[in-house]
Amino acid sequence: MLVGGGPGDPGLLTVRGRQAVLAADVVVVDRLAPLAILAELDPSVEVVDVAKIPRGRYTPQAQINDVLVDRAKAGKNVVRLKGGDPFVFGRGMEELVACEEAGVEVEVIPGVTSAVAGPGLAGVPVTQRGMVQGFAVVSGHAGPGDHRNTVDWAALAQSNLTLVLLMGVEKLPAIARAVLDAGREAQTPVACIMDAGLPSQRHLTSTLGEIVRDGAPAGLSAPAVTVIGDVAAFARGRIHLDLPAELTH
Amino acid sequence: MLVGGGPGDPGLLTVRGRQAVLAADVVVVDRLAPLAILAELDPSVEVVDVAKIPRGRYTPQAQINDVLVDRAKAGKNVVRLKGGDPFVFGRGMEELVACEEAGVEVEVIPGVTSAVAGPGLAGVPVTQRGMVQGFAVVSGHAGPGDHRNTVDWAALAQSNLTLVLLMGVEKLPAIARAVLDAGREAQTPVACIMDAGLPSQRHLTSTLGEIVRDGAPAGLSAPAVTVIGDVAAFARGRIHLDLPAELTH
Repeated sequence: MLVGGGPGDPGLLTVRGRQAVLAADVVVVDRLAPLAILAELDPSVEVVDVAKIPRGRYTPQAQINDVLVDRAKAGKNVVRLKGGDPFVFGRGMEELVACEEAGVEVEVIPGVTSAVAGPGLAGVPVTQRGMVQGFAVVSGHAGPGDHRNTVDWAALAQSNLTLVLLMGVEKLPAIARAVLDAGREAQTPVACIMDAGLPSQRHLTSTLGEIVRDGAPAGLSAPAVTVIGDVAAFARGRIHLDLPAELTH
Repeated sequence: MLVGGGPGDPGLLTVRGRQAVLAADVVVVDRLAPLAILAELDPSVEVVDVAKIPRGRYTPQAQINDVLVDRAKAGKNVVRLKGGDPFVFGRGMEELVACEEAGVEVEVIPGVTSAVAGPGLAGVPVTQRGMVQGFAVVSGHAGPGDHRNTVDWAALAQSNLTLVLLMGVEKLPAIARAVLDAGREAQTPVACIMDAGLPSQRHLTSTLGEIVRDGAPAGLSAPAVTVIGDVAAFARGRIHLDLPAELTH
């Protein structure tokens, strides 16, 4: 079973996800999963922390896949508990394909994604009528200029969506520069939410222009969700919404 | 309390969201909320179905806000239960601001968004290493050419993200045309997931070119989540992932 654990607060695990974890023989976790639920498990449950699999040059993802397949083939009820949603930068499909190719059936239980819940828990809506008609969620892992990058950052900036960045906090200045160069205003608000869903959650606010001039906000550290766009202004406090008459329906 | 109810399956409500609903004096719902949980409520709980508030030319959203404020000011524990996440096209911030301006404090409990979970439940990951570096979620309510539209669809198409459309199924051909005209390939797979998270969930597959030529897939009906991009091919069946060597970590 592939379970999305939400942003970190075990209360943001889904009802079905929680039931699956508590019924498992083996729970395979990494550092972004809602680890507090592990304390509720029976001592007979095997917990495999795949964050401890050494990150060398040889395929540790394949080792994670092997753990899942081996335990399932041994007749165990295996839950792979991931942070957020398993299909948002979670390599969920890779693990699912590896299991199915080995003859192991997989059920998917979606989760609360930090890309939406992180901002939401800091009072930032990723969409708002009259302000923005959608949002884009992008991995900041490979920023502009990185040879692995496949995003057209200028086009993305010009699409007029809220931009939500997961991971890659050190790429924020380069991304802010690309977005600014593509024509977004220097005053565009930016909010960085750290440790979303955990007791240590906190956020920082800035603007595109400030980040290009001065670098990332002081104190920014991973894991963080960064919101670029007018809605990020809600992180500074409530905004009175004066909707146009045609939107008051 | 502003609670995201997830895509429809009550098992995809969060643990904390479920607790909040079951502890409420008043539950304010609309048709996209996970209505099955209402059967578990004590008969003394007031359930207000705001989908029944007539949609006339005079501000029904204000009437919904009034219901929330009135009940809270009367000392009731009010839960506003919404489908998906309250801040993804949910008008959640409007209701929150209305409450706070009336002196009513609001706690937000994020939910599983249909934009990610709808595809996920149909086996479609919105991101996948080596295929796509992010996804954009856009309301199809105001498509290209609509005077309310604020999205630059050509720029969005060129950004190289998975495109997820919520609402506005009747705008799909116009959106497909805009995406195709912006240079995306005619063979780009499209998947439409209907009634995500409900027993009636089902999906249709097509391509950008087919939709531009023949219109939306036969049988498409609301509510639906539409995915445009290479990952949509997973809706036709499992794809063997042959990751480049540099991505096998």
